[in-house]
Amino acid sequence: MSETAPLDALVRSLARLPGVGKRSAERMAAALLRDGDGLGSDLLRTLGAARATLTGCTRCGALTLRERDPCTLCRSPQRNGRLLCVVEDPSDIVLLERAGGYQGRYHALMGRLSPAKGVGPQQLRVQALVERIAAEGIEEVILALSTDVEGEATASYVREHLRASGVRLSRLAFGLPAGSGIAYADAVTLARAMEGRHPA
Amino acid sequence: MSETAPLDALVRSLARLPGVGKRSAERMAAALLRDGDGLGSDLLRTLGAARATLTGCTRCGALTLRERDPCTLCRSPQRNGRLLCVVEDPSDIVLLERAGGYQGRYHALMGRLSPAKGVGPQQLRVQALVERIAAEGIEEVILALSTDVEGEATASYVREHLRASGVRLSRLAFGLPAGSGIAYADAVTLARAMEGRHPA
Repeated sequence: MSETAPLDALVRSLARLPGVGKRSAERMAAALLRDGDGLGSDLLRTLGAARATLTGCTRCGALTLRERDPCTLCRSPQRNGRLLCVVEDPSDIVLLERAGGYQGRYHALMGRLSPAKGVGPQQLRVQALVERIAAEGIEEVILALSTDVEGEATASYVREHLRASGVRLSRLAFGLPAGSGIAYADAVTLARAMEGRHPA
Repeated sequence: MSETAPLDALVRSLARLPGVGKRSAERMAAALLRDGDGLGSDLLRTLGAARATLTGCTRCGALTLRERDPCTLCRSPQRNGRLLCVVEDPSDIVLLERAGGYQGRYHALMGRLSPAKGVGPQQLRVQALVERIAAEGIEEVILALSTDVEGEATASYVREHLRASGVRLSRLAFGLPAGSGIAYADAVTLARAMEGRHPA
């Protein structure tokens, strides 16, 4: 066995994680293999347990206990079943729930169009979305997708495919992030914030 | 069991990795638990294998096969045993080896002084360094530490503790990074590059 083969394999695994480049993966691998602070055994344990107990909700895609599918959000009679928020990733659902205020249900596409990463329309849960709209009598779909090129392309694609359903489509507001001055905003954000201005 | 307990535990593990915040950890956890693309099982396998086969070299700290300790770098008769390069992290050794050109040996401190993260002198392998200098007859120690506040504090601490040994101390050159213009350098980097100028 080559001296570094097991390390290289671990670095390759870590570099597959979202937002992790080769250099970060190397740092992480070193931390995971450092004796003493138990980071490696901790991750093995928590990842094993999470994989054993959790699954993607077959309806919305949110992570849920294997014995609770559809998930609590999909079952809750307190949620507005006519309102559906479309996100890229199940972790976006966690974020939006933490932000609070939204009372409808969710649908995770499980990614976004990215020719660079080989993600095409067939990898996204768009057909399942079309079917849910009909089956659940959904009246409004809110697109909560990224505001970069890939997010915009994904939004266009989804919009195209929902046209026939006649459902009302909306998307999150563009504008300045909270707690930030206009000095820190880029030109596109500023232009959009200006466009979307409202009475003060 | 709470709906999200196994997910929360996994996110906490991932957030312990260097450079990973809560939001990144949530994205990573979602990717690891997504059915189908095998990222979770892949990481479980590679991390398990790497932990089973690799360990920190008891001499320099570099990752090495368990049955090969001290590591190849420490054993190699081709390396200059009078020259020792001190780094923070074992993954820095990989970087420097990849850069090439250095022919001495290494010593990883296993971190750097960081009151914010609770890392004090007793967590670093400084005493082992002092002992190696005496035992191996080392003549020059090169400090290849970070150039930020924590790295500088660590360098001062090491310098202090090596004074009695009489070893020659040096550190990596400060200056402009390769492939970058001065327009992109911050003021401290520029000032140091000016200070360290050499005949062209």
